Amino acid sequence: MSFRVAVVGATGLVGNEMLRVLEERSLPLSCVIPLATSRSSGSRVSFRKEELIVEDVEAFDFSRVDLALFAGGEIASKDYASRAVQAGAVVIDNSSAFRMDPEVPLVVPEVNACSLVQHQGIVANPNCSTIQMVMVLKPLVDKVGLRRVIVTTFQSVSGTGKDAITELETQTRALMDGQRPERRVYPHRIAFNLFPQIGSFGLLGYCEEEWKMIKETQKILNHPDLAVTATTVRVPVVRGHSESLLVETERPITCEEAVEILSGFDGVRVMDQNTYPVPEEAAGRDEVFVGRIRQDTSSPNGLHMWVVADNIRKGAALNAVQIAEVMCDMGLLQEKAEKS
Amino acid sequence: MSFRVAVVGATGLVGNEMLRVLEERSLPLSCVIPLATSRSSGSRVSFRKEELIVEDVEAFDFSRVDLALFAGGEIASKDYASRAVQAGAVVIDNSSAFRMDPEVPLVVPEVNACSLVQHQGIVANPNCSTIQMVMVLKPLVDKVGLRRVIVTTFQSVSGTGKDAITELETQTRALMDGQRPERRVYPHRIAFNLFPQIGSFGLLGYCEEEWKMIKETQKILNHPDLAVTATTVRVPVVRGHSESLLVETERPITCEEAVEILSGFDGVRVMDQNTYPVPEEAAGRDEVFVGRIRQDTSSPNGLHMWVVADNIRKGAALNAVQIAEVMCDMGLLQEKAEKS
Repeated sequence: MSFRVAVVGATGLVGNEMLRVLEERSLPLSCVIPLATSRSSGSRVSFRKEELIVEDVEAFDFSRVDLALFAGGEIASKDYASRAVQAGAVVIDNSSAFRMDPEVPLVVPEVNACSLVQHQGIVANPNCSTIQMVMVLKPLVDKVGLRRVIVTTFQSVSGTGKDAITELETQTRALMDGQRPERRVYPHRIAFNLFPQIGSFGLLGYCEEEWKMIKETQKILNHPDLAVTATTVRVPVVRGHSESLLVETERPITCEEAVEILSGFDGVRVMDQNTYPVPEEAAGRDEVFVGRIRQDTSSPNGLHMWVVADNIRKGAALNAVQIAEVMCDMGLLQEKAEKS
Repeated sequence: MSFRVAVVGATGLVGNEMLRVLEERSLPLSCVIPLATSRSSGSRVSFRKEELIVEDVEAFDFSRVDLALFAGGEIASKDYASRAVQAGAVVIDNSSAFRMDPEVPLVVPEVNACSLVQHQGIVANPNCSTIQMVMVLKPLVDKVGLRRVIVTTFQSVSGTGKDAITELETQTRALMDGQRPERRVYPHRIAFNLFPQIGSFGLLGYCEEEWKMIKETQKILNHPDLAVTATTVRVPVVRGHSESLLVETERPITCEEAVEILSGFDGVRVMDQNTYPVPEEAAGRDEVFVGRIRQDTSSPNGLHMWVVADNIRKGAALNAVQIAEVMCDMGLLQEKAEKS
């Protein structure tokens, strides 16, 4: 058994990282086809020491592949995902296009792989900030129950894409040289600054990223009434998202118990007391790191955690490839492959 | 009536800003004497177009002044504040040395100027993050009551001092030039990074800054049982602290009501709905800015706010000078001046 895989948006940050993750891991591959819009088609990306030519997604015949990893953003997913499914490919989509569709499983493999059995061709990869948060919420939900989740995020610019990394670098250089920094990508300067808005504002004055964290968490944990609130903030960090997380558990637990519960969860790495992860060190790593586990001084059942992960790996590319691996193990990828 | 004022730590960030604030405002001054440790004595600082020679605090006779603004850090305050008081000067101390002393008023003038009447010579200026937070908590405590306060901070490097600004700049340059950044001031790299530790770790795994925010808030609001919890984070911003603040009020209030209550409070500037302050724009300003006022999706009485202020001005130098002004208005500064 070996799969033919297309990566849509292969020249972007997440698409390129998907190629890196596919290189490193053991999903059996018979061929990998990088796809992008006509603007980038014809360019080359490396894969296992070969140079692959990027093809135009618009003209691509998805019956040539068993699996399509979509990392081209919401519009590309809306335009091409159905076509890929109709052509018999399984789609794992990193965009927000289908995440809240009740027919689309929204999956973090360590958390809710079981929901994959219901898939109708498309599986959604959750929002980056949500993924790292549910990785620590899941074992707590299962072992002690959760009443409430309060999160404030510190999100790196790589979550926006390559242009945003360039903007941070260009603005930083301008400021260091005493020049006026220009803005193109973000509504505010990001160099030596930060701002509490990710996406546009919606209901109740919450921005899109905040609603994603609330709604996706409820869906992934299959807990539609879980009380969740979020404040999402963009910070001048290149890679790695950090989260100041406060949960209220159903029954009070000690920090020691929390450490034990979290340490036993696959993919989570708990730091020793009074130590903590930082984005610089989490960048390039696969684990979700948790530190500063401590009692809340403002509630009897509250527990603070500091959660950091690489938003491009576990927050996007790695999680998508893990979904493919689990689908392969569950026989869900094979079935679609046979159909095509 | 006009006062002789000493500024201890006049060559530091906060001490120098105290000189700027004294220049701008209307506290009547007959002379200003900059003081520092022997290392900096003999250097010059500017004040109202004059160059003042910095004198050695060790050798200084505090009976020469009516008021001493201390901004030289905890050790300087412990070493010299009592001597200044014994010499008849009123001390307004920016360090944490005396803040939790029950005999020392801990004052944000807009919030608890009344507590100044109990002073015994020393008045403490609160922690920078605490000042901007209590400025928005106070009107809410008075008008609707508070049950609980949950805060996560984004603190700029200027809170640490000049060396930390240099460290951020030097590390940023090194990284932009592809070189290895060096660490001197902070336990982690600060350029393009962040870390959730300000001060050393203490009880319950909270760091010093977190305990300051909890204990000082309770003291300033005269609400020793108020449920407060904090997570304090250092971010690569030069100036201006930001806070993601969630409060639970005694009774539910609408955002409109919250806006009205906060707008009526002296020194607080409320931003329009879906707008918010950022540290870049708050730097150099006197107000405490509040934006993103919105209902909590996780509790019936919860209210989110995003609070930004200049940590060197309202968070330190301005607040200290305002204390002096209010003491002058209350006749508290004059009395001490007459004694000397």
